[in-house]
Amino acid sequence: MDLQSAQRPIEDLLAEYVHCVDDDRLEEWPDFFTEDCLYRIISRENEERNLPMTVMYCDSRGMLKDRIQSLREANVYEHQWYRHMISAVRVVGETEGVFTVHTNYTVFRTTNEGSTTLYNTGKYVDRVVFFEGGPKFIEKSVIFDTTRIPTLLVIPI
Amino acid sequence: MDLQSAQRPIEDLLAEYVHCVDDDRLEEWPDFFTEDCLYRIISRENEERNLPMTVMYCDSRGMLKDRIQSLREANVYEHQWYRHMISAVRVVGETEGVFTVHTNYTVFRTTNEGSTTLYNTGKYVDRVVFFEGGPKFIEKSVIFDTTRIPTLLVIPI
Amino acid sequence: MDLQSAQRPIEDLLAEYVHCVDDDRLEEWPDFFTEDCLYRIISRENEERNLPMTVMYCDSRGMLKDRIQSLREANVYEHQWYRHMISAVRVVGETEGVFTVHTNYTVFRTTNEGSTTLYNTGKYVDRVVFFEGGPKFIEKSVIFDTTRIPTLLVIPI
Repeated sequence: MDLQSAQRPIEDLLAEYVHCVDDDRLEEWPDFFTEDCLYRIISRENEERNLPMTVMYCDSRGMLKDRIQSLREANVYEHQWYRHMISAVRVVGETEGVFTVHTNYTVFRTTNEGSTTLYNTGKYVDRVVFFEGGPKFIEKSVIFDTTRIPTLLVIPI
Repeated sequence: MDLQSAQRPIEDLLAEYVHCVDDDRLEEWPDFFTEDCLYRIISRENEERNLPMTVMYCDSRGMLKDRIQSLREANVYEHQWYRHMISAVRVVGETEGVFTVHTNYTVFRTTNEGSTTLYNTGKYVDRVVFFEGGPKFIEKSVIFDTTRIPTLLVIPI
Repeated sequence: MDLQSAQRPIEDLLAEYVHCVDDDRLEEWPDFFTEDCLYRIISRENEERNLPMTVMYCDSRGMLKDRIQSLREANVYEHQWYRHMISAVRVVGETEGVFTVHTNYTVFRTTNEGSTTLYNTGKYVDRVVFFEGGPKFIEKSVIFDTTRIPTLLVIPI
């Protein structure tokens, strides 16, 4: 599959992904990833300096499931909703069936009292593989601009 | 028409729709809808609880026209512009020629003194039908996150 | 080339353009334009009234290069990053191989201390020509809503 043919199904994958999170269907979230995968949230600064410090780091689908389970059970954080905007999806390359994709994102956050604020902006750097059932992330790096995160980051971005 | 073929023309419809509103060509706005149609703006909370309370409710193109006319004539609200961003357009299903589409949106608002603020985020749940002249909305539900709306909602979202 | 066939490559051009700016690869920025070109940033109000006053005005690729050079050398402005979101890309017409394109944009800005704010919203009105190597801007008008710009506009939008 060439880069052009991969564009639309990868856009669909990203669209489904953000609707899944925004609709609070978090139990389905790990299914966007392969069994062996990497999901990490890291600041732009740390990424550029090659510093390993991350805000979230999961290297298997099992860890993604654990994270959702603890989020559901602990549940000590303020009730909130995300609204993701994604833009400028660019399939920048492919090596041995793994597509690298850059996408700008913005997350807005609405809390219980109903006010919405800008929560986080940044860039997804994703690695995507196609299977019979469709594409999945083998790696998703959320590289965020906003290092001043007003509250604990609980829900995946 | 299958879901994949419907994707691009529906994206075009949504793009035209938001440019129409943002360009203040509101007289053309009702033409995006069928004669019998439903346009409503409802909070996420009310929608999830199946509460009927809406912020705007029009069930014919005539009512949409009335709304624009009264907006133009009453004109007692502060002069303002919207800027819509739409993202993650998903054609989620089709039944008897009616396509259901989910889209994330953000509306920014600029007032007379020239400052821009985040006004509203949410999700469009649209039902779209194709005619010879192109697709139209038979239903558009604007399901908003932001229940704290700082000023009266006058212009359609 | 008809409008429909031009849609995807023009979307790609815009996506590459915003990633180039957001990644701070500003030395590549002039290459998105033709040798003879027009790049200007103007307020919505001035554009609608046909007033010539602009915030930035460059009418050749050389001037675009000069601008980046002076930005790099002067460097007296606060370190900052942009994050562009683009939406509702509409190829609205074509005349003698020149495509006119309307796109909504939002720019968020992150400063050194790591907080992100809404910086500017508006509309790109672009004129695009296709060459063997791909499409380029012969004209890019950044028509902004936000006249209250909190700090000097240094980086191109």
